[in-house]
Amino acid sequence: MKAEIIAVGTELLLGQIVNTNAQYIAQGCAGIGLDVYYQTVVGDNRQRLRETFALAASRADFVIVTGGLGPTQDDLTKDALAELLGLPISIHGPSMERIEDVFRARGLHMVESNSRQANVIEGCDPFPNDNGLAVGVGLTHKGTHYVLLPGPPKEMKPMFDRYAVPWIRAVMGEEAVPLHSKMLKFAGIGESNLEHRLIDLIDGQQDPTIAPYAKEGEVSIRLTTRASSPAEAERKLAETERVIRDRVGEHLYAVEDVPIERVIVELLSRSGKKAALAESCTGGLASELLTAVPGSSAALVGAIVCYTNAAKRDLLGVPESLLEGEGAPGAISAETAAALAERVMERTGADYALSITGVAGPAQSEGKPVGLVYIGIAERGKPAETEKLQLSGNRGSIRLKAAKQSFYRLWQRLRAEAES
Amino acid sequence: MKAEIIAVGTELLLGQIVNTNAQYIAQGCAGIGLDVYYQTVVGDNRQRLRETFALAASRADFVIVTGGLGPTQDDLTKDALAELLGLPISIHGPSMERIEDVFRARGLHMVESNSRQANVIEGCDPFPNDNGLAVGVGLTHKGTHYVLLPGPPKEMKPMFDRYAVPWIRAVMGEEAVPLHSKMLKFAGIGESNLEHRLIDLIDGQQDPTIAPYAKEGEVSIRLTTRASSPAEAERKLAETERVIRDRVGEHLYAVEDVPIERVIVELLSRSGKKAALAESCTGGLASELLTAVPGSSAALVGAIVCYTNAAKRDLLGVPESLLEGEGAPGAISAETAAALAERVMERTGADYALSITGVAGPAQSEGKPVGLVYIGIAERGKPAETEKLQLSGNRGSIRLKAAKQSFYRLWQRLRAEAES
Repeated sequence: MKAEIIAVGTELLLGQIVNTNAQYIAQGCAGIGLDVYYQTVVGDNRQRLRETFALAASRADFVIVTGGLGPTQDDLTKDALAELLGLPISIHGPSMERIEDVFRARGLHMVESNSRQANVIEGCDPFPNDNGLAVGVGLTHKGTHYVLLPGPPKEMKPMFDRYAVPWIRAVMGEEAVPLHSKMLKFAGIGESNLEHRLIDLIDGQQDPTIAPYAKEGEVSIRLTTRASSPAEAERKLAETERVIRDRVGEHLYAVEDVPIERVIVELLSRSGKKAALAESCTGGLASELLTAVPGSSAALVGAIVCYTNAAKRDLLGVPESLLEGEGAPGAISAETAAALAERVMERTGADYALSITGVAGPAQSEGKPVGLVYIGIAERGKPAETEKLQLSGNRGSIRLKAAKQSFYRLWQRLRAEAES
Repeated sequence: MKAEIIAVGTELLLGQIVNTNAQYIAQGCAGIGLDVYYQTVVGDNRQRLRETFALAASRADFVIVTGGLGPTQDDLTKDALAELLGLPISIHGPSMERIEDVFRARGLHMVESNSRQANVIEGCDPFPNDNGLAVGVGLTHKGTHYVLLPGPPKEMKPMFDRYAVPWIRAVMGEEAVPLHSKMLKFAGIGESNLEHRLIDLIDGQQDPTIAPYAKEGEVSIRLTTRASSPAEAERKLAETERVIRDRVGEHLYAVEDVPIERVIVELLSRSGKKAALAESCTGGLASELLTAVPGSSAALVGAIVCYTNAAKRDLLGVPESLLEGEGAPGAISAETAAALAERVMERTGADYALSITGVAGPAQSEGKPVGLVYIGIAERGKPAETEKLQLSGNRGSIRLKAAKQSFYRLWQRLRAEAES
């Protein structure tokens, strides 16, 4: 079956915002085997909305619309569709009560226009809005299935996942293809290297499909299979995963879509150990990523951002002889990376410590090139180790790749210990 | 005049990528006064491409297409348009030579299909591709103007700006409106409060237009005017800016689109002073934002991320009596915020210090609610001051708002000093 996605909003036409809603809905459609042939953006204009809906209905089984369900006179989606289909608008009681409750709780006066958000088209299945006020609509009319969703992503996404997708699946019946997929996440390996080592699998893929994705500092592979039962899917995915593990298993840190810092926080929490960080060129980014994981206080003691040589000396006691002067290796060196990791471990009493020092750019530093980064890793009772990296990209991407690579090294240690 | 934007690509329909090209082109159109009524996404399918082009041509003066200019058999944009218009395809000599040169320089064998990237529609104005191989097209046929651009953003954007926009402007002639705009950036004030204080200006806006935007932790206003000369534009924008300054000038930190941390780094660098940070709930985010500004090493000594109570005590010497035990104000308190700021200033020898301690969530801490944050600001020779915030949003947005609010407080000090 075919679907068409329509996003309504003048701010999209003016380029003030990017159409992430269409992408989200398109992914959801692909996930249930619903083909999308067109996506359209149209403004808050009654006539153009009607024409766009009519055209979509002539080409697709499902017309999925996002935006234009709000309280203002510019929000015309429901009115335009009701007009096109010749159906009356009515008020959805539970949504109206919910709107009244919200206004009462906030001590605000509810104006007439707010009630528009409780409007539905008669005969539809209303979709509750768990994160906002405008009710959604699922409606079948003369063989075409219409889905109306709010525009704000934080309202649209949960409504789509919780109410619209099950409704669409029910309409599709047998035609809803149960796609099963599994995300494999890799660290410490670049996209091209990963693809190179799996090239015969990727080129010869059939079922499961093997799709590599790269974000900055992260590489993933999504395995997808069409199977009639979860057990069959699991068997097919596991077989492909095993082949991939045989080749690049040492880089596979998770089989779900999580960042490596989450895995690190879990491994640390489980072992009752704590890490500390000394960051120079990353400026707090590594610490920020780790502490963005809820519960990270059980895993991270703290971090010292020693952006300047003075801070490396005063906050961590790195000897002047390492940092400056004739014959000194300098702040950007394996020696300093090792000293930073050892000293922050000592100062904080942590069990592990990471350090990152390098040239994030845009200009070189100490006569060393942009992208040169040293990582240090210290562990209680063992000598510190370092790694030299030559990273490409702009300032932000060098910082991110450096932080992720340091996480990869810590993850290796933690995994080895968990397995021992 | 009206334009319609068409993005071609199966990966858009599958939701694998988000349609940033449409946003970029839409912004460009708005900038020259070209109205966009529709945006469409369509796959690499000859018949559907032809239908989509025909529909767009029936509704718009300009049909701007991105994607489908590559070398493979799936890249059908030029073929489909040529078929629709009944025009022949020919090879653009200079583009062909460029493709051959690139292959020769890389020592690669050029296959037949690569020459497709030099194809143009007869009678068109070819647009050079400064960042890739596929040549672009500007073509007027039976009163409709077609613009064909490549799909990869790094090729599309420069081709659009350098060649397509001037071509469109030339076609539009007098109708190309030279829009001038100016961005005003605010800190320490929420979007609704800012709008409330300017509501009569916003509601009564004519020329310049006044468009407020909110990103997390940032509020901006874009003033836009249609003027025949830069001098006239400057006069009109300055007049509106003056009225806005009279009302909310104490929050206006820049008249260009820069983050507040950049202004802080500049003010510090200019005065030769340095700042330090003690971060608890923000976990390194404030430091990361400041050090993301190139040249920040002249402005920031360093930061201490004291995520745990142990770190507050061991790294910064915050007294145990503040942090824990009967009657202690706790880690999330004005007292601890003040101590953190004072102590990190002392330890680092900085001239200013910021501290941030609070509950970023998802769970409460010390029995205190999610979103409660204390900010401390210390300055050499003055007692530390603190501010209590109750922020809304998820973990990430609470952290960002807290960091930005601390920057606002530091900016106030620095500005006052710069003006004194």
